[in-house]
Amino acid sequence: MRQSSLFGRTLREAPADAQTPGHRLMLRAAIARPLASGLYTWLPLGFRVAQKVEQIIREEMDRIGCQEMEMPVLTPAELWKSTGRWDLLEPITFRTRDHNGREFMVSYTHEEAVHSHAMSEIQSYKQMPLMVYHFQSKGRDEARPRAGLLRVREFVMKDAYSFDIDQAGLERSYKAQHGAYERIFKRMGLDAISVESDTGAMGGDIAHEFQVLTDVGEDRVVVCPKCDYRANMERATRMGDVPIREEGAAPRSEIATPSTTSIEALQTMLSLSADRLLKTLLLRDASGSVVAVVLPGDRDVNEAKLRKLLGTSEVKFANDADFAAAGSVPGYIGPVGLRVRTVIDTSVDERAYVAGANKKDAHLRSVVRGRDFTGEAVDVHDVREGDVCPRCKDGKLRIVRGVEVGNIFAYGTYYSDKMNATFLAEDGTRKPFVGGSYGIGVGRSVQSIVETHHDDRGILWPIAVAPYQVHVIALPSNDETVRAAADALVADLERAGIEVLYDDRDETAGVKFADADLIGIPFRATVSKRTLKEDQVELKPRSASEAEFVPRATATERIAAAVRRALA
Amino acid sequence: MRQSSLFGRTLREAPADAQTPGHRLMLRAAIARPLASGLYTWLPLGFRVAQKVEQIIREEMDRIGCQEMEMPVLTPAELWKSTGRWDLLEPITFRTRDHNGREFMVSYTHEEAVHSHAMSEIQSYKQMPLMVYHFQSKGRDEARPRAGLLRVREFVMKDAYSFDIDQAGLERSYKAQHGAYERIFKRMGLDAISVESDTGAMGGDIAHEFQVLTDVGEDRVVVCPKCDYRANMERATRMGDVPIREEGAAPRSEIATPSTTSIEALQTMLSLSADRLLKTLLLRDASGSVVAVVLPGDRDVNEAKLRKLLGTSEVKFANDADFAAAGSVPGYIGPVGLRVRTVIDTSVDERAYVAGANKKDAHLRSVVRGRDFTGEAVDVHDVREGDVCPRCKDGKLRIVRGVEVGNIFAYGTYYSDKMNATFLAEDGTRKPFVGGSYGIGVGRSVQSIVETHHDDRGILWPIAVAPYQVHVIALPSNDETVRAAADALVADLERAGIEVLYDDRDETAGVKFADADLIGIPFRATVSKRTLKEDQVELKPRSASEAEFVPRATATERIAAAVRRALA
Repeated sequence: MRQSSLFGRTLREAPADAQTPGHRLMLRAAIARPLASGLYTWLPLGFRVAQKVEQIIREEMDRIGCQEMEMPVLTPAELWKSTGRWDLLEPITFRTRDHNGREFMVSYTHEEAVHSHAMSEIQSYKQMPLMVYHFQSKGRDEARPRAGLLRVREFVMKDAYSFDIDQAGLERSYKAQHGAYERIFKRMGLDAISVESDTGAMGGDIAHEFQVLTDVGEDRVVVCPKCDYRANMERATRMGDVPIREEGAAPRSEIATPSTTSIEALQTMLSLSADRLLKTLLLRDASGSVVAVVLPGDRDVNEAKLRKLLGTSEVKFANDADFAAAGSVPGYIGPVGLRVRTVIDTSVDERAYVAGANKKDAHLRSVVRGRDFTGEAVDVHDVREGDVCPRCKDGKLRIVRGVEVGNIFAYGTYYSDKMNATFLAEDGTRKPFVGGSYGIGVGRSVQSIVETHHDDRGILWPIAVAPYQVHVIALPSNDETVRAAADALVADLERAGIEVLYDDRDETAGVKFADADLIGIPFRATVSKRTLKEDQVELKPRSASEAEFVPRATATERIAAAVRRALA
Repeated sequence: MRQSSLFGRTLREAPADAQTPGHRLMLRAAIARPLASGLYTWLPLGFRVAQKVEQIIREEMDRIGCQEMEMPVLTPAELWKSTGRWDLLEPITFRTRDHNGREFMVSYTHEEAVHSHAMSEIQSYKQMPLMVYHFQSKGRDEARPRAGLLRVREFVMKDAYSFDIDQAGLERSYKAQHGAYERIFKRMGLDAISVESDTGAMGGDIAHEFQVLTDVGEDRVVVCPKCDYRANMERATRMGDVPIREEGAAPRSEIATPSTTSIEALQTMLSLSADRLLKTLLLRDASGSVVAVVLPGDRDVNEAKLRKLLGTSEVKFANDADFAAAGSVPGYIGPVGLRVRTVIDTSVDERAYVAGANKKDAHLRSVVRGRDFTGEAVDVHDVREGDVCPRCKDGKLRIVRGVEVGNIFAYGTYYSDKMNATFLAEDGTRKPFVGGSYGIGVGRSVQSIVETHHDDRGILWPIAVAPYQVHVIALPSNDETVRAAADALVADLERAGIEVLYDDRDETAGVKFADADLIGIPFRATVSKRTLKEDQVELKPRSASEAEFVPRATATERIAAAVRRALA
């Protein structure tokens, strides 16, 4: 490809609103361009990277017997209504209506669609296990698109779906996908770790995310440095501390705490550490039910765990009327005598705490769980740095940032039950499909590669996904001898099956080398007046600091060998 | 691929509403399935065909230096508003709105988007000529989806866009695309002819459609059997007849024609052939302007020509108030004394006609153009069978049915003018891009292949686009020796790079052979107890009536050679 007519202009500076190193480099190197907020175009260089990423995914899906197909972007509302997700996904999806008033979703994902097809294509247990996948555009009405391709409003996802006759089959399919994911990310050059995760809107119970650990990530991942425990914050647990049981605590007594409505203010007033105080939150779920959650003052509630516990899509703070109904007032709520469903986090010990007195300007001292209040024991708190690993019961957990590049869900019969999607089982009865879904975001993977493969001059593409393998630079292009030699080298390399970007532009050495570093093709081969004097080509890997000079006669062979070694 | 676990079930009968042979076969052979009206899924077999079609298109686009990229499905309203197409395309497009109220279109096509990118990526004349393309889903809110993939509401289009510095450059790019299209359809096995066409909503003046002639097509194509003239009905012209000039016609006179409001009724009453009557249509364009169109009674108005003449997106019949304002009444309108813009079709001769008298129950006899009425002379009539070719001026035109599988438009500066999309020209001034766009519908191409390649038993795929090259049949699959021999043949063929569908199902010979004929893979290789007795494999091309028997020892070699010959 001749760079002089490449569609895509490198930029000396990234737009001021570019938020991460990868975002800046994607724009500067002409990999992708926004058409509107959160809507991106792959320019030709980026398209080649995306295609290579897709091809790696395709090969690994094919290897585990997953069959490629393609479902449409627009899917009818009735499908989504059959599982209740039409309403559930409303806040995050794009909808449209045809001129007859029928509604469609710009698909968020395709569980409903694939189940609808499975109902007519898979009739008998003999046809399973069966897995299908497609690459298709998804719409997400993100309120705040962020950081280039890390959070967008439309993106291509590879989504795969497994159909099995029972849970054991699902577990085998899930394991096959998990293995494929490990190979896929490795081949792309991504160090993605598998992390236990919450299933959220997907349903079911077993799920993993593949997270690339980087400071630019939005997700918080809990990692044990001593064993293989990895979980996202929504799912992570910790080994419980040895419960503290204070025997013979004093009876509870009221204390005056005027204008002391926060844990911080209470700490200061009483000179107590936060773990001696109780935090009580009064919350309301999507259906309007109210619940009180009790935690130690030094623990934060984990909203995802709570949503799951309550079986709701949304948790909000309660209003004044809810406080009144529960017999309390905002700022002074506590679990003693509260007239509402109360859940007690497992991190609350059986010791004397200070808690709200459920009346203005007052708290209670020496409040003890079991003695002064009761409630269901639940785990709804955030893990924090230094908590003890729940698996090895030894490592101190760390919390790191990650980008989720893939996720897999074993949802079981979540969709087939709701859609009455069944097959003829061996015993002659009809049984629901037992399924899982398996997603990878193509654009997010590409940007994650950039986030984790760059230096201060530009991108360093892993060769398996690089837009081209060799960047040939002619210096200067308007010198006839140089031009002829560079043209010949390009032709030879292409004949040898090497992918070449050829900088034939009328630009200075400074501009060309800076662009080569920015675009980040793994090998740079320069043909200049100086190298031709010695009948040589200058060869420099993007990641090396030094170049070497190779004789022109064997340059193609040498470069092709270097590319093959790098690809191996 | 083992057929026992293939996702996609063949059907003995097509659904009753399947409208064409291709539609029925696509459904029966598990190529595609509707998810909803006009929204189709490629099942795995069909996906392979679509991928091969895409790859042929890709190779030919790459060959002419067209660069692949990818623009999003959702595009912001502002882009479309900048060219006036937001309103123009409203009746046929899907729109959506984000939660902040911003509007987007499920893209109909991408001229505006690509111009928006060109404005920032192409700065100088030095970067052109330049062509880009992508494969992307398009939305069309078709009121009546029809005949499977022939008319749908979402489909993948390859759309390419050329950018040139001037009209001469555009003509070169257009010619390169035209040549690529000829190769593309030929490689797919489609006999697509290039047809002059109208530009419609695309703007510009030069356009061609590639039409596959088949009775199931919706389009009418005018073809000269004696020369290379081909045009669609919207664009076709004919050689004008020698104009009839009646000298000394009688003066016009009124005749009573009570309740005679149609050409047919008038013919009967007066015993005159339709070509002796004048048909006057009073029409209204999208802006509300009214025009009268005058044609001989035996000619039909061509709406596309008229829309183009009036520069409007829509033509409707005038209302009663329009008739009153023009000084006429419905059913008795004629050109004499009409108070409205009047256009006269070129097929109206200077002879005595009978025409409406612009008052109830009356017509005029001996109405002569030039003498009794005047108006702009325009060509707004439909060509019909037997008209004389405008090119060779000899052949009698035929009108045949076609499916439009591709179209190309040289729109020039239609978009760049409206969007102020300019580049720095060699003379230092800023000039608008001169462009064209070039589309191919992937799904429609696939179904057109089926419409033109089948017999009464099923599809006959051209090998270049066949889902697999060889269909291996084991008979019966549950015989261990047969199974082992078939497994070995499949493994050998796949090692030789042949694409194999392997019917390993527990079905009768009748079912397996019927499915093989239905799916239409070019070669069928059967391993049965009978063939094994002779140590043979039965090899049958799908298109042949007779099978041959080849020794097992050389079967792979023989089959691979046959495949290679067919592909060559």
